[in-house]
Amino acid sequence: MDYFNGPGRNHLFVPGPVNIPDQIIRAMNRNNEDYRSPAIPALTKTLLEDVKKIFKTTSGTPFLIPTTGTGAWESALTNTLSPGDRIVSFLIGQFSLLWIDQQQRLKFNVDVVESEWGRGADFDVLASKLAEDRAHSIKAICIVHNETATGVTNNLVTVRNLLDHYNHPALLMVDGVSSICALDFRMDEWGVDVALTGSQKALSLPTGMGIVCASPRALEASKTAKSVRVFFDWSDYLKFYKLGTYWPYTPSIHLLYGLRAALDLIFEEGLENVINRHARLGKATRLAVEAWGLKNCTQKEEWVSDTVTAVVVPSYIDSAEIVRTAWKRYNLSLGLGLNKVAGKVFRIGHLGHLNELQLLGCLAGVEMVLRDVGYPVKLGSGVGAACAYLQNTTPLIPSRI
Amino acid sequence: MDYFNGPGRNHLFVPGPVNIPDQIIRAMNRNNEDYRSPAIPALTKTLLEDVKKIFKTTSGTPFLIPTTGTGAWESALTNTLSPGDRIVSFLIGQFSLLWIDQQQRLKFNVDVVESEWGRGADFDVLASKLAEDRAHSIKAICIVHNETATGVTNNLVTVRNLLDHYNHPALLMVDGVSSICALDFRMDEWGVDVALTGSQKALSLPTGMGIVCASPRALEASKTAKSVRVFFDWSDYLKFYKLGTYWPYTPSIHLLYGLRAALDLIFEEGLENVINRHARLGKATRLAVEAWGLKNCTQKEEWVSDTVTAVVVPSYIDSAEIVRTAWKRYNLSLGLGLNKVAGKVFRIGHLGHLNELQLLGCLAGVEMVLRDVGYPVKLGSGVGAACAYLQNTTPLIPSRI
Amino acid sequence: MDYFNGPGRNHLFVPGPVNIPDQIIRAMNRNNEDYRSPAIPALTKTLLEDVKKIFKTTSGTPFLIPTTGTGAWESALTNTLSPGDRIVSFLIGQFSLLWIDQQQRLKFNVDVVESEWGRGADFDVLASKLAEDRAHSIKAICIVHNETATGVTNNLVTVRNLLDHYNHPALLMVDGVSSICALDFRMDEWGVDVALTGSQKALSLPTGMGIVCASPRALEASKTAKSVRVFFDWSDYLKFYKLGTYWPYTPSIHLLYGLRAALDLIFEEGLENVINRHARLGKATRLAVEAWGLKNCTQKEEWVSDTVTAVVVPSYIDSAEIVRTAWKRYNLSLGLGLNKVAGKVFRIGHLGHLNELQLLGCLAGVEMVLRDVGYPVKLGSGVGAACAYLQNTTPLIPSRI
Amino acid sequence: MDYFNGPGRNHLFVPGPVNIPDQIIRAMNRNNEDYRSPAIPALTKTLLEDVKKIFKTTSGTPFLIPTTGTGAWESALTNTLSPGDRIVSFLIGQFSLLWIDQQQRLKFNVDVVESEWGRGADFDVLASKLAEDRAHSIKAICIVHNETATGVTNNLVTVRNLLDHYNHPALLMVDGVSSICALDFRMDEWGVDVALTGSQKALSLPTGMGIVCASPRALEASKTAKSVRVFFDWSDYLKFYKLGTYWPYTPSIHLLYGLRAALDLIFEEGLENVINRHARLGKATRLAVEAWGLKNCTQKEEWVSDTVTAVVVPSYIDSAEIVRTAWKRYNLSLGLGLNKVAGKVFRIGHLGHLNELQLLGCLAGVEMVLRDVGYPVKLGSGVGAACAYLQNTTPLIPSRI
Repeated sequence: MDYFNGPGRNHLFVPGPVNIPDQIIRAMNRNNEDYRSPAIPALTKTLLEDVKKIFKTTSGTPFLIPTTGTGAWESALTNTLSPGDRIVSFLIGQFSLLWIDQQQRLKFNVDVVESEWGRGADFDVLASKLAEDRAHSIKAICIVHNETATGVTNNLVTVRNLLDHYNHPALLMVDGVSSICALDFRMDEWGVDVALTGSQKALSLPTGMGIVCASPRALEASKTAKSVRVFFDWSDYLKFYKLGTYWPYTPSIHLLYGLRAALDLIFEEGLENVINRHARLGKATRLAVEAWGLKNCTQKEEWVSDTVTAVVVPSYIDSAEIVRTAWKRYNLSLGLGLNKVAGKVFRIGHLGHLNELQLLGCLAGVEMVLRDVGYPVKLGSGVGAACAYLQNTTPLIPSRI
Repeated sequence: MDYFNGPGRNHLFVPGPVNIPDQIIRAMNRNNEDYRSPAIPALTKTLLEDVKKIFKTTSGTPFLIPTTGTGAWESALTNTLSPGDRIVSFLIGQFSLLWIDQQQRLKFNVDVVESEWGRGADFDVLASKLAEDRAHSIKAICIVHNETATGVTNNLVTVRNLLDHYNHPALLMVDGVSSICALDFRMDEWGVDVALTGSQKALSLPTGMGIVCASPRALEASKTAKSVRVFFDWSDYLKFYKLGTYWPYTPSIHLLYGLRAALDLIFEEGLENVINRHARLGKATRLAVEAWGLKNCTQKEEWVSDTVTAVVVPSYIDSAEIVRTAWKRYNLSLGLGLNKVAGKVFRIGHLGHLNELQLLGCLAGVEMVLRDVGYPVKLGSGVGAACAYLQNTTPLIPSRI
Repeated sequence: MDYFNGPGRNHLFVPGPVNIPDQIIRAMNRNNEDYRSPAIPALTKTLLEDVKKIFKTTSGTPFLIPTTGTGAWESALTNTLSPGDRIVSFLIGQFSLLWIDQQQRLKFNVDVVESEWGRGADFDVLASKLAEDRAHSIKAICIVHNETATGVTNNLVTVRNLLDHYNHPALLMVDGVSSICALDFRMDEWGVDVALTGSQKALSLPTGMGIVCASPRALEASKTAKSVRVFFDWSDYLKFYKLGTYWPYTPSIHLLYGLRAALDLIFEEGLENVINRHARLGKATRLAVEAWGLKNCTQKEEWVSDTVTAVVVPSYIDSAEIVRTAWKRYNLSLGLGLNKVAGKVFRIGHLGHLNELQLLGCLAGVEMVLRDVGYPVKLGSGVGAACAYLQNTTPLIPSRI
Repeated sequence: MDYFNGPGRNHLFVPGPVNIPDQIIRAMNRNNEDYRSPAIPALTKTLLEDVKKIFKTTSGTPFLIPTTGTGAWESALTNTLSPGDRIVSFLIGQFSLLWIDQQQRLKFNVDVVESEWGRGADFDVLASKLAEDRAHSIKAICIVHNETATGVTNNLVTVRNLLDHYNHPALLMVDGVSSICALDFRMDEWGVDVALTGSQKALSLPTGMGIVCASPRALEASKTAKSVRVFFDWSDYLKFYKLGTYWPYTPSIHLLYGLRAALDLIFEEGLENVINRHARLGKATRLAVEAWGLKNCTQKEEWVSDTVTAVVVPSYIDSAEIVRTAWKRYNLSLGLGLNKVAGKVFRIGHLGHLNELQLLGCLAGVEMVLRDVGYPVKLGSGVGAACAYLQNTTPLIPSRI
């Protein structure tokens, strides 16, 4: 029942699903339970309260939906908007593209603002559109915080400032799939109306839970939004929240216990420390890429991502060959280049419950793979550059001092 | 992180989520993996092939959707029907009611055929409707194979015969949530167009996978169905099936490995043996109920369910008190009476990977609870009646002979 | 890799190894660790402190030895005695017999006091021997607290009183393998010098840890005891206790984490509640045996065991056939009759992390097996008798009230 | 219950206990079982047959003893020798020292042949002793195949040749704790009489099983050996082997299932491939040490160990500080220097189920630690040297080609 094993551990460096810490694997190693007993609501109550902390919200309402990121997107859109509603949506890579495709199939009127892949969202265009839209025909701005395909992080503060500047009431909807719990994200401070992530990303859980958080304005919008929805309907959740039984249909109790363990781990480490760790590992990865003489797909420093790095390969190399070789020879799982950057980039995911030596093992593996496919990297160069940074910045593990 | 434990095992006898066998718990005890590596498609291919066997179909196309039964319902409806389509739907208990509610909210024109709770679907009404519908305005018949709230199993052969008799082209859509893998279900032979179940029922997995199987006619219908759908859209799955990568978005690799283990267990025991075991445990439960002097909520023998028994309590007893006491004192989880039968029935689920002694422990517990709440059952009477039947019918375990 | 499975759970009712609670299985679901890091000594420290509580000792010194009960016996004997030393040892069943065999092979001068199997230790003989032994040639009294083969519990208070009465300095060595953590055992109050158990018994862990506790007098004796020993030598442990690194050789860190979970469960339930639960389940089992018209191997009420019941079968039945049928047909594991009582008794273990409904399922299974082998038990009779007692005595689960 | 965690995985590079592969963790994630049912003997039979393959013996008899390596030593000695017997034993490091200490405490007449730590066994002295011993007073030669404290591998062929040359009947007893299943070891071909290992070493299991294999000559010797033994007595095992029930006392069924999984993994990879992998990782480690400008504790190439490398640090550095820093800052577990080399060496274990990138992550970590403690290693140098070798030698994973 195990397919294609090699000796030793798989080195999982795709930008999700990510490594699950042993504490979470243990917490999920259990039988089913009756979710209508008093135990599961008691557990759920702690989860709904605590999950707000990773969104940095006190006024938001979270929904833990048995679905994936794609479903979380659909939940965000259908609960707040009506068919035909105009939305502005930024296309900067494969995942924003897929979200836009969903928006269009859900019959919204999507105003696509496209950037070259490798660049961030074009806020100048947004500014023009907001400036022109005195009638407030724009109902929502949809933006990915971190585009997983290109390793680009958008500055959400700018979006908020523009909305405020033009006093525009559009809802701000953020795909935080590869950011929340890893990058700095502040739902309340930044006036985000719907934010969402998936369990298999920085929370380091198995796939299967879409986590959506709605602001009071988003909840208000959901009362009149006319998009057809049942499975994803927040109103069913809210009804059961009031009853104190919490679940309109069967949740995965495994993911609930897993989420409890995940949150406990994050709070034990400290959310700010988690974010700093991601910053450290992201920086180390970029230093290695530089030492290898390769380019980051992300075109400017302001957009670099601390959760995923898309590395551009020389034109004579097929990046898919890098991913294949890594998997076939070194038990290393890297991310493929997708769509427009297929064959041109490979991706190193560095998010979730991960530490320095895990990353360094991955970087050493990438060096060997690069030589295997014909790129004359100096072995040890990237690892050395990463070490030079990490050796000076890695803190002692607090519980071990 | 464990809430409200008592000593010893929890006795899980709700009609889902059900007990997960150790073999499945073991198979799921693992790290995440890259679902874009060759390993997961190779695994998926075996699952899609083998899962058809539990539907008894060779022509059907299965979809393993990261969702619950409610989502599976939505997938079945939105892929095959258009808003305004007329469907005939049988209301016989809480779960058929919830499905009808979904059908209405999805904007179908639902022709509800209601029965008293405890009775099966009213096929005479169906016959009249089919007879009258020469214009074939009825696009689909929606029926639960087994109503989990009342323990009523509908005879699907009758529905097929009626459709054939009137040469009516309506799609036959079956909720098999508490039947498939436990009761005899034959998709191809009975001409079922969409059948569905959830992972946490007779497959004995955690919650989180909705399993939907579509006939060629249903697939054909999906090409023109106008209901808005993205997450649940079969066409995205079919596109990736063709590519051989199988997944339009991230699956739970844990549930994939779990499903592999679940199917292996079922095939090892033999699907017909699994069905016979459920028949045996269902019969034993009903004999116990009879011995206790209590009534089965199911009004006629032809409708009795081999996966769940709803037991009617005397009017001076609140069935919710039975469920509470079972949980508080004996670590026994029973099902509540829902909606119209709230307070009037409690439910014993006897589906999934379960054996005789587990059921007998449950029945003994129910006897004690009945006395605890004031019903003067003779202790040992139900267990004795069940034993009398089981002692003569329980086969030797083949691998141990 | 799984041999001879049937559907549903195995019902494990041998008197050890016993069922492992999920909390312990989870705690042990982990990678190895460096046992020389600061983490394992820190964990060990809590274990050594807390394990004393289950022996009810404050002055004792515990040793957690990577071995079985047989090894724990050897540790007790070789650390305190010298070859040729005279010991009085009670033979009342297979396990006391095996211990005596070990004592003899270790070259002690064993004064065997035999009782008929099914009877307790003969304290009159002990009294005579002590009375006569004015020279204090008897160096130790060896006694099993609970003889697992016959279900006989010896009264240790009587032994202590006799030793005190004769002012005899012999060490009191107690095999508590099937008693400690399940029956009332008081090391300090009863002046026990060495007590021992195995992890796979009432602690509900996997096999592999022998737990030995030594009184100050036993430790004193170990300084001069001349039996050859290395692996089992307490002095190596004591040396590493002093160093604060605790382990003279590699421990199983899995069993250490498992023991932590086991102790936490016991303290959460309350040790006295655990003992009461065993008393309740023992009594219920005996009431069932009586209702079946069968005899307890234990000849007098004063010796009945609350951890194991040996049931005498009619002479025309081979008890081994009962054990075989239980396993082959009902996935029920019962204990064989051993040695002198082979074929004559079968044993029901009712110790460890177990509750009422688990036991009742077992009892129902035994009833069916009895009929399968030709004994005309009235089905439901034993379960009913057990229920009648349990229904009135089972407390609410405190955390669920 | 988890002590001192940091984020991400612990990097376990002590020379045992080693990393447990997920497949083994899964196989052990289970309840207890009745070891007297037919299932456990059936499993045991396959284990006893297959475990001989890792010793490369067909004539040997294996014993799977619930103990540690120290217990396995005691089993080897006490079953084959009598108090006062003369044995020649090589002292080359801490573990050979501990074995000699045991030999002396077990009352053998030990002829210690000492080498400087970092050098192999002195075979010239052995030759003289054999030459002189025409009376065959030497009953056994005891040698560690691989001294875990110094990373020294002894050439066992030389020992066999000397014994053959002098036609000397002494038993050849080999501690293969850190060699068997990792280094080339050939029990039959080399005429080894007793060989042993522990489960937590190259087999990659938890601690708790001592695996001892006895040649026909060793079994013959056990019939007359006068050392007192009970727990470790082979004759009890042999009695139960004949009965087909295999166990004289309770085994850890968890370790039995774990061993099954471990052997399956080894055979799937191929034992020679496992050995080659260890050779590759050992060589890579030594190349890194050289690139760092540090010395291997092993003084000559002929003795280098492919399972553990002891690295000598400059005199101004305390190697214990390296181990502490690795653990405190980088979640890296390294081995301390022991006894004579305490403070002078640290050890990198590279045995068990391990691959290239895991080792490279460790080596990168060591580089950072070296700088942390003041040794001016060029970052990336050792990793680069290791990569240069591994990139050219790492084979494709067969199942993934």
